[in-house]
Amino acid sequence: MDKATINNQTTAVITSTELLHHWQAHRSLTRRVIEAFPEKELFEYAIGGMRPFAAMVQELLAIAGPGIRQIASGGTEELNEKIDQANSKANILALWDAATTAINQYWALIPDEKFHDTILAFGQYEGTVWSSIFYYIDNEIHHRAQAFVYLRSLGIEPPYFWQR
Amino acid sequence: MDKATINNQTTAVITSTELLHHWQAHRSLTRRVIEAFPEKELFEYAIGGMRPFAAMVQELLAIAGPGIRQIASGGTEELNEKIDQANSKANILALWDAATTAINQYWALIPDEKFHDTILAFGQYEGTVWSSIFYYIDNEIHHRAQAFVYLRSLGIEPPYFWQR
Repeated sequence: MDKATINNQTTAVITSTELLHHWQAHRSLTRRVIEAFPEKELFEYAIGGMRPFAAMVQELLAIAGPGIRQIASGGTEELNEKIDQANSKANILALWDAATTAINQYWALIPDEKFHDTILAFGQYEGTVWSSIFYYIDNEIHHRAQAFVYLRSLGIEPPYFWQR
Repeated sequence: MDKATINNQTTAVITSTELLHHWQAHRSLTRRVIEAFPEKELFEYAIGGMRPFAAMVQELLAIAGPGIRQIASGGTEELNEKIDQANSKANILALWDAATTAINQYWALIPDEKFHDTILAFGQYEGTVWSSIFYYIDNEIHHRAQAFVYLRSLGIEPPYFWQR
């Protein structure tokens, strides 16, 4: 290896552990946004024909744990956005916490050299491991931000975006 | 270096170039969301006491180019969210495109080994280079998603989130 190659390799933009913590910090903010909703509005309130936030959270739950499990195991996962137990705020929060633990456990099984592997996420979305994980995070930020608008329009102040 | 150390270093989670392209793909989606707004609603429409999307875009413009310029130069930048020229949709789009070029130019001046340096972004927000850049990207996703709700409530279909 020449010097330039070594320099390039010793300097990660972000490490796997940092990316995990970055996501879990976002997930803790999303958890507080779920908590900020009144029970009824979590399941029923929406704007402009969009889904209530509970339905968006079901999507996030369907993606996060199973998505990382697929990457860790190298197997495949079904995208199941209909989660029957997600029928109350308390149950959604419990599912959220279970996903937090599952993500940490599966993440520990992903070696660094896997992040540029190509995968077919949920049997249908082709990408690299890193681009799939970024998609999961970005999609969560996207839907949580829509919940911020729901909360504001209900007269409820959401948590600060920068508070993780 | 032992074998484990070498393995760890040869395997980046994401490279600097990939992160740049990831952000610019997000920025091209945000550009299409700006385009989707009628002129008047871009500057006047809002929900729940929030800002119109034009004001949010001024914030994004204040952050993106100057934020990366600060990282590249090692100097400091002022956060100026009042951009007088951002007074029409056409002008905002022109400012957006200028920022796209500026980001590419400054990014090329950031060596990989700088991503874990600590900086005081805009003289006030302490973080690493990577965490600052992630904040800029995440903040853009956050406000663009709010614009998705504005569009939906106006009866306008936003671009697909996954279309970059």
